[in-house]
Formats: sequence, C-alpha cells, structure tokens
Amino acid sequence: MPGLRELLPALATKTYFNYGGQGPLPTPSLEAITASWRTIQELGPFTDAVWPFIEQETSRVRRSLASLCGISPHRLALTENVTSGCVLPLWGLPWQAGDALLIGDCEHPGVVAACQELARREGLSLHSLPVLELCQTTATADLEAAVLRALEQALTPQTRLVALSHLLWNSGSVMPIAAVAAALQQHPRQPWLLVDAAQSMGSLPVQEAAAAADIYAFTGHKWCCGPEGLGGVALSERLLEQAQPTLIGWRSLRHETAASSSFHGDARRFEVATSCVPLCSGLATSLELLAAAGTPAQRLERIQAGSLQLWQGLQQLPGARTLLPEPPPAGLVSVQLRGQDTAQVVKRLGAQGIWIRRLDEPDCLRACTHIVTDGAEIDQLLTALAAL
Amino acid sequence: MPGLRELLPALATKTYFNYGGQGPLPTPSLEAITASWRTIQELGPFTDAVWPFIEQETSRVRRSLASLCGISPHRLALTENVTSGCVLPLWGLPWQAGDALLIGDCEHPGVVAACQELARREGLSLHSLPVLELCQTTATADLEAAVLRALEQALTPQTRLVALSHLLWNSGSVMPIAAVAAALQQHPRQPWLLVDAAQSMGSLPVQEAAAAADIYAFTGHKWCCGPEGLGGVALSERLLEQAQPTLIGWRSLRHETAASSSFHGDARRFEVATSCVPLCSGLATSLELLAAAGTPAQRLERIQAGSLQLWQGLQQLPGARTLLPEPPPAGLVSVQLRGQDTAQVVKRLGAQGIWIRRLDEPDCLRACTHIVTDGAEIDQLLTALAAL
Repeated sequence: MPGLRELLPALATKTYFNYGGQGPLPTPSLEAITASWRTIQELGPFTDAVWPFIEQETSRVRRSLASLCGISPHRLALTENVTSGCVLPLWGLPWQAGDALLIGDCEHPGVVAACQELARREGLSLHSLPVLELCQTTATADLEAAVLRALEQALTPQTRLVALSHLLWNSGSVMPIAAVAAALQQHPRQPWLLVDAAQSMGSLPVQEAAAAADIYAFTGHKWCCGPEGLGGVALSERLLEQAQPTLIGWRSLRHETAASSSFHGDARRFEVATSCVPLCSGLATSLELLAAAGTPAQRLERIQAGSLQLWQGLQQLPGARTLLPEPPPAGLVSVQLRGQDTAQVVKRLGAQGIWIRRLDEPDCLRACTHIVTDGAEIDQLLTALAAL
Repeated sequence: MPGLRELLPALATKTYFNYGGQGPLPTPSLEAITASWRTIQELGPFTDAVWPFIEQETSRVRRSLASLCGISPHRLALTENVTSGCVLPLWGLPWQAGDALLIGDCEHPGVVAACQELARREGLSLHSLPVLELCQTTATADLEAAVLRALEQALTPQTRLVALSHLLWNSGSVMPIAAVAAALQQHPRQPWLLVDAAQSMGSLPVQEAAAAADIYAFTGHKWCCGPEGLGGVALSERLLEQAQPTLIGWRSLRHETAASSSFHGDARRFEVATSCVPLCSGLATSLELLAAAGTPAQRLERIQAGSLQLWQGLQQLPGARTLLPEPPPAGLVSVQLRGQDTAQVVKRLGAQGIWIRRLDEPDCLRACTHIVTDGAEIDQLLTALAAL
C-alpha cells in the first residue's frame, strides 16, 4: 500500500509496530479535521446555519461505522473511547444482587476494574473465563471448540453477562464471538455479551461479531487510523430496550430542552453531551482511505502477510517464544525473549527508532503489523531483536 | 479588544451573540491543535518519545484551569464536557435510600435528567429550589440574602446534595455559591454542593465559588473560547475521599496495566481513557489569549459594559421585558418580546446574519456579550429587534 503509507507522516520518522496502541493519522484526515473546524467557525459555531453541517458529519461517521458493523445506524452510539462504549451501557442494565459476571482472563484492566466496581455496588459476583492458556496451547483450527468448552464449564445459572475481547490484546488470538453469542442464547438466562473490540475494529471483518454481541465497543484511533478521542459502540436491540443511560446529558434526551422528555429510543441514549465534531470528519476520512485500500477481508490478508513474516522470523530467533503456537490470525504478534528484560528491550529498540511495546500479563513484547507495514521494516525489527 | 477579535474568524462573517452556546475558536488555538497533532505524529503516536509531550500538554491545561479555579491541580479532572463533570462524580457517592436532592429550578435539562435517573436507581427523592422568580423580582443587592432564605426553607434533614448553577443559563443571574457552600456547612448533614459552571467559567472570576463547591464542572468551549470536546471539574477534598469513579478506564487507575491497582487518589480517578490530547493544546492557547486580554475581573467589566448597553437598549424597546429587573451581572441578557414567536425571531435575525438563541423555560430570547462584542453589534441587534 505505498499510496496510503505516503499519507502517514508518523511512519516517515520511525519504524512503527504499535498500531494496537494507536494508529498513525493520515494527512488527509488531519486536513479534514481542520477543514471541519473552519466550516464550523464560518457557519457557526452556534447558529441555525451550522446544525446541518454538524448533523452531516456526525451521520457520515455513524453510517460508516454501522456499515462496518453490519447493523443499522440506530444501533450505533458514538463515544469518546473504547472504555466508554464498554462501560456506559453496563451500568443501566437491570442487575439483581447475586448475578454473576464472567470475564475473559485477557480483558483490559480498565474494563476489569469497571466490572469490579459494578459488582461491588450491585452485589454481583465476578468469575474468570480462562482463555489465555487455551490460546497458547491450542491449534487455531481447534480454538473455537476449546473456547466454547471453557465457556460451558464456566457458565452457571447466575451468569448474567460475559465479557470477552474479539481480538485479544495480549496473545493476538481471535475469539469466536458469534459462536459464543449463539451458545449464550441457549443458556437459560441468555447472558448479555460484552465485546471489547479495541483491537478488532479496523483489522478484522467484524460484521458477524458486532451484529451478534449486545455491546460491541471500539475506538477509531487504533486500527482505523482515526484521531484519538472518538469511538463507538454497536448495541443489540434487546440492550437498547433493557438498559437505561447513566451518563446523561442533552444528547441522551429525545428533546434536549426538557428533562421531562424521555431518552432517545435508539443508541443515542448512550451519547452524552457536547463532543468534538471535527473528529467525526477525521475518522470518516480515515475509514474512506482504508476502504479504498481494500475490503476488510482483503486488508486482513495483507495484515496477516506481515504478521506471518514476523512470526516465522521469530521462530528462528534463539531464545524467542511466540505466545501463539501458529501464525497469528491478525496483526498482533507477541513474544517472550529468554533472559531479556522487556522494558529494556523496548527502550533499546526505541533508541534505534523501532517502536514496539511490552505487556504485563503475560510479561511479553508485542509488535503489530498493519496494511502499511512493509517487509523491510519487519526484517529490521528481526535483525534488531537478534542483535540484543 | 480589537486584537483578539481579529483572531476570531467566526466573527468575520456574522453578528454573534451565542457565546453561552459556543464561543468562537481563535485562529492561534486551531493552529496549536494542528501543531499538536503534527508533533504527536512526528514523535509517536504510541512511543516513549511522545509521552513527555502528551504529559506536558495535559499538565499545561490542567494547571491553567486549576489556577483559574484557585485550587491545586490535583483537584482538577479533565472531562469531555460539562455534563461529564457534573454527573460522573455523582454516581459514586455513598447514597442511602431516602436521601434528598435539592435542585435549582434553572438547572440544565441534562443535569436534571441525570439526577432523576440517579434518584430512581438509588431511591432518592428530588426537590426543587425555586430561584428563577427571585431573580426576576429581586434587586441585585438583595439576591444573595433571598437565595439563602429560599435555601434555608428548602433544606430538610434528608438533603444530601444541592445542585445550582453559578451563572444561570436562562436569567443570567449569578448565584452566591460561596455563601451557599458556607450555609450548607452549617447544616447537620453538610450536603454536597454541585455547581454547573457552564456559563461562569471564562466569563466571571470563579476562584471563590470553585474552591467552595464539591463539584464545580465547566467546559472549555463556551466563554473560554476553546475547542468543543474538552472541559474540566474542580473537586473538593472530601469528594475525592468519598466518591468512587463509575466510568472507569486506564486513566482512572493508579497503575494502568493492572485492574487490581487502586484508583488514583486525586481527581484523575474521574478521568476515563483515551481522549483527544490536541484539544488540550487548543484550550491552553485560548486561555492564554484571554489572560492576555486582562484579568478575569477586568474581562468581566468589559463583558458587563456590553450587556449593560444591550439591557438598557431593551428597556427602550416597546413590548420588551428583560428577565432581570437590573443590568445583568455578566454577559447573558434574556428578554421576552410581547406578541413575538421566539423561534421565528431567531430565524428572522439569523437571516440577517445576527445570531441569538431562544430558551424554553421561561420562553425567551437570549443574547450574550463577550469581551470581543463591540457596541456597533449591539446597536445592530437592537435595531433589528425594533424592526420586527
């Protein structure tokens, strides 16, 4: 993708593998953001003349994201970040003391801490769904069945919600979200399914999973290469019926000038108040640039080609052990290096202009490949790791 | 302030009186935002090289806002908007069923709706503190005493929180926040004081009120002339001790990589997750431009000169009745026009490039003067109103 790559100034000055932390912002997206601000100042900022533009830019990104999720736009709420999308719909669900939350053991600390606080206040119990070891020991072809068996063993009559990432941020494994959703439908209490899609949105085709989950929350600033501060969440019809908003502002209300009005019936009930509209213009532009580079499936192939090259190179590296026993299903490649302090490795590579990150649980290094990663960069990383 | 005015492209194309809805963004602030994005792309976006810059820009705006509030930066949380600042700290307070919330009758529908939902879930009762009629009928010099009498009458042994705006968005009156806080200290249960500072921050000196309230929540995009999508909240020491965060993400946690870590002890416990750092650079720049135009007290004098001119002109307008019986204490001027449909008036003035807004309760028109408003604009508005 030489065309897209040249639009990414972040990549001109470094060898970059932290797409799972934050993606590079294309120059046309930054230009769209500033153009949006100029238009808002020219027509507004608070006038009848500017509302159609604001509605247009908000709808444009809502439609794009809903289309990627394979849902109607009325099921898509815009949020500031992944956390807001995961957590806000949770608080207003009709919990009963004694309900159990079942949380994957690879979930992000933010989501886990939010569930802990929810459990404390509502008298819920917390349980762990062990998937990390399965990912490290199971052949890719057998992972879905293994996860479903682990789920079946962990579900109890009290389980009211299951939280699981679509693409695990540490091992880089894909969870069988649609199959998990189908299994939960068969369970007597039909637990809600919360999916952290921070790593999947923009890197995988997500339609099947997003349409099956009750809460499918993502950000625009990682694999979608949009600006930081804008994400979204796809919500199921039953969640929209059952969950009340918690962080309530004028955007949650059907009539913004009257507190006595009801909440929006659609996903906007989980939107809050004033947010940064120019970010919508930026993310919409980034999504258009990605779409021009290929379908989600075509882009995943390109991402996989890079992660395969990296994973295979790591197999040749003495003392290296990839977290996954087979080539990664997407763009996250995690590895442990015998005898190396991971924080020191990040620092030493950074000094050479090569950027990867470390993770705590398990203690490992993570490098990501995106559609703009080229083979020479991967060789450079492998050479630097070999020279440690 | 001809210098600042020329930096505001929004004012070049219209006659603008909606500063209470959204302030114009200075060109240097937009340039600071885009420069911030370019720096993040050059050094990052996710590298050890970029963290010092992000910390610098975040700290810079946090320090500026804390200084305006007269508090230490550890009491200042950055938020996406006023609503988040008002509502997030509320949910994690130690409520007991039967506690009562006392809410001013001029509060914004978003905050009222959030309190209604909080009351529904926690079994609280809601009560109204009537201040609108006092504002419309009381001389400015007597308003503080009248509000304190109304407060005394409305407080009960169950009152656990009082919610009141500093500068009322409809009448434009200033509430005696520090005196209210002092009165609440004398009450047996020492109710928490929540202050919506959407209209006061950037238009009034706020130090005394912000330091006295438990929750003093504001936005940067109205009177501070910063970008939309960034605000903050000043929190009291007792609130920081008593309230748990609700919308929890990596920024709420003391160690962002571990859910088992505790929450930040300072106001960052109410920050959530990734937000748009370039907005910090923009708001910091706007605050510097305002500071260069004078102290908060000097700027209020300039604002008052404009609102006085407008208020006096309205006294001469047949059929016009200002909501306030005396010149406004700040920049909000609300008026009712006998026999005119307010929505139609907004539309007809807008067609002439003059922008004011209407409000529902009470049904009225509102025009705001800021330090950049010039006398000729006010004359133009008065002439247009006279010609309706």
